[in-house]
This record gives sequence, C-alpha cells and structure tokens, in this order.
Amino acid sequence: MKIYLAGPDVFLPDAIEIGRRKAAICAAHGLTGLYPLDNEIDLAAHDASRQIFAGNEAMMDEAAAVIANLTPFRGPGADAGTVYELGYMAGRGKLCLAYSNDPSAYADRVARGGGVTSEGGSLADAHGLTVEDFGLTDNLMMIHALELHGFPLVSPAGTSADVWHDLAAFETCVRMAAAKLLRI
Amino acid sequence: MKIYLAGPDVFLPDAIEIGRRKAAICAAHGLTGLYPLDNEIDLAAHDASRQIFAGNEAMMDEAAAVIANLTPFRGPGADAGTVYELGYMAGRGKLCLAYSNDPSAYADRVARGGGVTSEGGSLADAHGLTVEDFGLTDNLMMIHALELHGFPLVSPAGTSADVWHDLAAFETCVRMAAAKLLRI
Repeated sequence: MKIYLAGPDVFLPDAIEIGRRKAAICAAHGLTGLYPLDNEIDLAAHDASRQIFAGNEAMMDEAAAVIANLTPFRGPGADAGTVYELGYMAGRGKLCLAYSNDPSAYADRVARGGGVTSEGGSLADAHGLTVEDFGLTDNLMMIHALELHGFPLVSPAGTSADVWHDLAAFETCVRMAAAKLLRI
Repeated sequence: MKIYLAGPDVFLPDAIEIGRRKAAICAAHGLTGLYPLDNEIDLAAHDASRQIFAGNEAMMDEAAAVIANLTPFRGPGADAGTVYELGYMAGRGKLCLAYSNDPSAYADRVARGGGVTSEGGSLADAHGLTVEDFGLTDNLMMIHALELHGFPLVSPAGTSADVWHDLAAFETCVRMAAAKLLRI
C-alpha cells in the first residue's frame, strides 16, 4: 500500500536524505512511501512548477493515505502546500494522518510573535484579526479533519529538539497507517 | 447553485458584514453563497471547534464550487484553514476559484520579512529552508490546482488599498463561477 509523504521537508537542505529516511521507515512497516522529490523534474523547464504540481497530484491519486508534516513552517502554522494536500486527500476519501513536532497551542505561538490582545474573551492579533483559541495545535479544519478522516494529530509531549529531523512522531503515524491499511 | 465562501474573512472584526456583502454579490449573479458564519454554533460548548468543522464540511459537501480568499494572512502566505478547504473541494471534484488582494510574488513577501539569502540560484530563508521561487503568488500546489480544477487565481494589478474589504477580485470570481455553473 502506498502512502503520500506530504510536508515542508522538501524545503530542507537535506530534503532528499529525509525522504529516504521516511521511505525506509514506511518500508520497515510494510508500506511504500511516495515522496514528492521522487518525481524527476527539470527545474530549468518553463513549466517546472506545473510539472511539480502534476507529479504530486498523480502521487496523491495513487496513494491510499497521506502522512502530513504539520510542524509550523515560516509562521505560526503549518506549510500551505502540505495543508492543501491534506485537504485534497480528505476530499478524495483517503486515510489522513499527520504529525507536528511542536505540540504548543496555535494561539500561544501567535502570542509569542507579539501584539496579541484579549478583549471580551476573544484574542486578536496586531492587525485586529481574531486568533483561533480552542487550545488546538493549528487551525481547527486540519485538526478535526484528521479525527474524522483518519487519526488525530500525533505530537510529542514537548517540542522536539530538532523539529525537522526527529521522525518519532512520523513513525507513530506510519505504524497507525500500517495497522489500518494492512489490518495487522 | 451553491458556492462555499472560504477565507480568513471570518476572523475580521466585521466578519458577519463581509459575509453579507459576499452573499449579496453571489445573489446578484444568480448564485447562493454559503458562508461559515451562517452556521449557528454555541461557542461556549465544549466541542465548539468540532461543531464549526462539521458545519463547514457539510456546507462544502453541499456546494458546487468554492471561492477561496488566499490574501496573505498572518505570514507570507494564505490562511491554512482556507487552503485546507480549497484542497478538500479540489479532492471532491468541485469547481475551484480563488482570489488574492496582494498580487506580489510569494518569494518577494518572504524576502520582505528579512534574512533571505541566495546561493547557487536558490533562495533560502533565515532558517536555511528553501523559498519557492517560481514567481507565483503563493505555494505552487494551490496556484496550479486552481488552473486545473477551476480558474486561475484572480488578483488586482496592485495590492488593494484595503485587502480585507475590497471585493472586486471576489466579484470577478463570482462572475466566472456563474458563467460556468449557470452556463450564461
């Protein structure tokens, strides 16, 4: 069974090596990990970005499940491309799993950025926009989608020492996916 | 025909009024806009966030199309909840439209935040993570999904004076959706 490996891992300096490690963990649990960088793309092509999209979508259509890395990326929440892919897989009725190596609440991360005020029991950021404050790790659409379309978000008890290379939560997801997909 | 109105508009201080304006524009074009805040949720309930999720998902399942507001929100890119919903609707095979009131390139917005370096033709942020640099307005997954599953992203020529209240690009999306769904 094939699992699509979504995440901002592809933006790491050692993106290929991380993909290899993730695929090896999948293989150890009897699953085949599909990693975006497995697609061969000519980055010099005029339509390189479209080729990447098409390759990723084809991989998702081929996979029975997704494991999304929702570790906060370049801001208080998850990487947009990863979130799009999680939504796409949920919409396609595939099994959805995800992890974040930062278990803190979304509202706390926004507050750490400064400028957050509380008025009438509701938090607002420096621009006056409401800050979701349900104690969840990220936007409620992703968090509850996981419960409904697969398994609840997996997070360590405390933030990982190396959020981009710690694959313990990822392996927990793989184990759960294998139990479900392979009926172990 | 029903259209789901996705966007961080729900986090604005005048979220309800914006929803009314969007619904009125839809109605003027013969469409019914479904806005998340139309769902009555008891925010004091222990499972309020799950009720919001369930209400939004039911609305999406009911709608023939989505118009997502991808205007950058709390960071260089679009709101995660909105992006999840766009992915979900694409996965369900619904007609996908979106707009952003900031037409600048994603890489330029990240660069404005500081710390971006260029090495060997590739951009990296202050944490050494690659910055997508295809000249696109946001992550390639959303941008190309729109082309494939609906219409290309709609943006004004320059950033709107009031990115959260300018509904011109939104209305363009409504017009395109009406032409397609109502075969005008």
